[in-house]
Amino acid sequence: MNLTTPRKLNGFWELMPKEELLFEKLLSNIKETFKQNCFLPLDTPVLEYSDILLAKSNGVSEKEIYRFTKGDTDMCMRYDLTVPLARFVAMHQNELNFPFKRFQIGKVYRGERPQKGRFREFYQCDADIIGSETLSVVADAECIMLFERCFKALNLGVQIRISNRKVLGGFIESLKKEDVSTEIFIILDKLDKIPKDDAVAQLKELGLSDSQAEKLIGLTKTNGSLTDILKKVENLCENETFQKGIDELKALDRSLKSFDAKNYVYDLSVIRGHNYYTGTVFEGFLQNNEETIAIGGGGRYENLCGYFTEKKMPGVGMSIGITRLFDILLKQNYFDTNSLNEIDLAIINFDETLDDCLNLVSKFREQKINADCFYENQTFKSKMKEANRRQVKYVLIVGEDEIKEKTYTLKNMQTSEQEKLSFEEIVEKIKSDRMQTQK
Amino acid sequence: MNLTTPRKLNGFWELMPKEELLFEKLLSNIKETFKQNCFLPLDTPVLEYSDILLAKSNGVSEKEIYRFTKGDTDMCMRYDLTVPLARFVAMHQNELNFPFKRFQIGKVYRGERPQKGRFREFYQCDADIIGSETLSVVADAECIMLFERCFKALNLGVQIRISNRKVLGGFIESLKKEDVSTEIFIILDKLDKIPKDDAVAQLKELGLSDSQAEKLIGLTKTNGSLTDILKKVENLCENETFQKGIDELKALDRSLKSFDAKNYVYDLSVIRGHNYYTGTVFEGFLQNNEETIAIGGGGRYENLCGYFTEKKMPGVGMSIGITRLFDILLKQNYFDTNSLNEIDLAIINFDETLDDCLNLVSKFREQKINADCFYENQTFKSKMKEANRRQVKYVLIVGEDEIKEKTYTLKNMQTSEQEKLSFEEIVEKIKSDRMQTQK
Repeated sequence: MNLTTPRKLNGFWELMPKEELLFEKLLSNIKETFKQNCFLPLDTPVLEYSDILLAKSNGVSEKEIYRFTKGDTDMCMRYDLTVPLARFVAMHQNELNFPFKRFQIGKVYRGERPQKGRFREFYQCDADIIGSETLSVVADAECIMLFERCFKALNLGVQIRISNRKVLGGFIESLKKEDVSTEIFIILDKLDKIPKDDAVAQLKELGLSDSQAEKLIGLTKTNGSLTDILKKVENLCENETFQKGIDELKALDRSLKSFDAKNYVYDLSVIRGHNYYTGTVFEGFLQNNEETIAIGGGGRYENLCGYFTEKKMPGVGMSIGITRLFDILLKQNYFDTNSLNEIDLAIINFDETLDDCLNLVSKFREQKINADCFYENQTFKSKMKEANRRQVKYVLIVGEDEIKEKTYTLKNMQTSEQEKLSFEEIVEKIKSDRMQTQK
Repeated sequence: MNLTTPRKLNGFWELMPKEELLFEKLLSNIKETFKQNCFLPLDTPVLEYSDILLAKSNGVSEKEIYRFTKGDTDMCMRYDLTVPLARFVAMHQNELNFPFKRFQIGKVYRGERPQKGRFREFYQCDADIIGSETLSVVADAECIMLFERCFKALNLGVQIRISNRKVLGGFIESLKKEDVSTEIFIILDKLDKIPKDDAVAQLKELGLSDSQAEKLIGLTKTNGSLTDILKKVENLCENETFQKGIDELKALDRSLKSFDAKNYVYDLSVIRGHNYYTGTVFEGFLQNNEETIAIGGGGRYENLCGYFTEKKMPGVGMSIGITRLFDILLKQNYFDTNSLNEIDLAIINFDETLDDCLNLVSKFREQKINADCFYENQTFKSKMKEANRRQVKYVLIVGEDEIKEKTYTLKNMQTSEQEKLSFEEIVEKIKSDRMQTQK
């Protein structure tokens, strides 16, 4: 028979099972945090009608999207979790309680050329609050606080940098350049990647004078506490947009203080790529010895469902770059691989004790102990080798005497310590071990 | 602006958030059981190269499969989790420890016309054990025991009906009809759906005599304990296949008894649709007042990766129809919806105590209490309505006096009981409540 070479599509993320165990642990920590903050889970389909997904492409270009027809149905694989959320909320607006707080952790698809750190299939991890007609700035603070809390739950340092688009937006209005504000924001968003002279040149192309361009770029260097920011910009201009931006920043700061948020600063250089943000914007950075790595963010959008319904539904959300985060943590040896054993206890049988050992395995599993028996290996030596290869924590060597006496020699494979114990004592020992590791 | 009507693709499963909470609970129970039985998680991509997925279509017809090209890549969405497992194992055969025990819970795609109870996107929930060259029948018993244990963890009654394909296969060989055995198995698999006379006629078309057809159909009526089965068939024929089938059944029974499995019987009518099964086959039924509902099953396949590698890798697996199971449980009011509150504690603030209440919310969340504050509602009345609508368990009404005295009136929304308590007492009360519900 002709064999097909087994291979995986390029740029599709796939973990080995032991890594997957760690990734699941990471996800379940974050999920728990979302639930404690009263966000509800949502799991929308991977496929949607093309006209739905393409109604608002959020800056993802159509050529990146997996789109195809089957029968006469034109469909796409989702490229983010925000458009499906908008579709869901618009469809069910009469059944949901608002503000609607939902989280979704799921795979999204972007058929771009895979580069280092970029995938064609990867996880997004989003939490959003959607209001009906109005939504208080307290919700913005809640999302920022949630971001902080997720990293706290993971025992990771984070710094959140916050701005409000209406501040720079108001200034751009005062220059009478609001018709090209999207283009201006795109340039400002690239300031850390392109030389300043290039940015000035690009802003001048949009009709700004030299001094206007310099002033705008200078403004993005503003950062610190809210007092620092206000001192620098409070009298910058007088239009309504600007004033609203300042008021929102003040209200946000008050709520953040009430929530007892700790790891944030204000920074007018934060723009966020997506042009649907209209107010609060923030970015999270992993704080790590020397490095500072962008790891997600979020912001306020004035109208989530505008393409699907006339009802106004403002929202605010946060997103953690979970695939990226996992890759970083794996490289930094963040995970205590000892605490996530595939097997707590391996029972080493002899031919004549196989049936008794299977019975023991079953009894340990009944007590929620991850126990296994290497029935496939023929010799004692090969069974012990197997236990080593699988990094088993404890081994129980069970011959006929042990079965008769109902007392077993438990061997710690890391320390080589041995103890004679009863079934109940072994269960207790392994469970108390586990409690220790979880602390 | 022209609005796009928000709608979801036909036949794609999507739960409302409160149901999703229940579904996640179901999945996490099953996952825990898989892990206790030392199965490792795997999460393969949704997309695969078409030549990989179509190498072995396992009885899923090509027209059901979502297939498309992007650039010059021809790809498919997975229609099951078994072919991706085969691809993965063949690719990583030198890195994995065998027997390789993996589970995967994920969405699969079948573009058939959706009928009642059938979906185009649905979850599969699989656990398999893959051996290298050989795999003991103990592994078959482990998969059956795992099936039993999953239902025990869910507190659901189950009956598992077991057969071995080599028993009827051996008999078919003795009739010299092994060249049409696949076709014969397909007919026998339909016996509960078509009249017996039709089955006889179809078997005769394949060249069986009247009495051979009758005898074969009669054999499928054999069920009971292993002793019952052996009494009826032990001297049926003498070829090697048949004898191997009987030996495997005996070995399986011995291991099942060692594992202390309880909810199984033998039943030669169990065939399982997929023609890749070669030995043990089993089906699980939900035991439920009067109804008996098929809810999954599994079996032994002699060579998982035959299309991808020359190395022989026998396997045995089990699969739970989790989407179907959830739908049934939802209809049967299986879930205690009270135990899965979106919100444990709603803090009802007045305008002047908003900031203090946000601070309290934050402190409760820090203690892993799902607390929330309805800052969006303007009046006290609308806040209380909100608490009712969201089926909040406890409410804390917090005015300026409460803040000053640091003592709060906790109201149980189900019983209307009220108590004056400190922060620490409230935390303790809600946590002990939760322990009670989990029991």
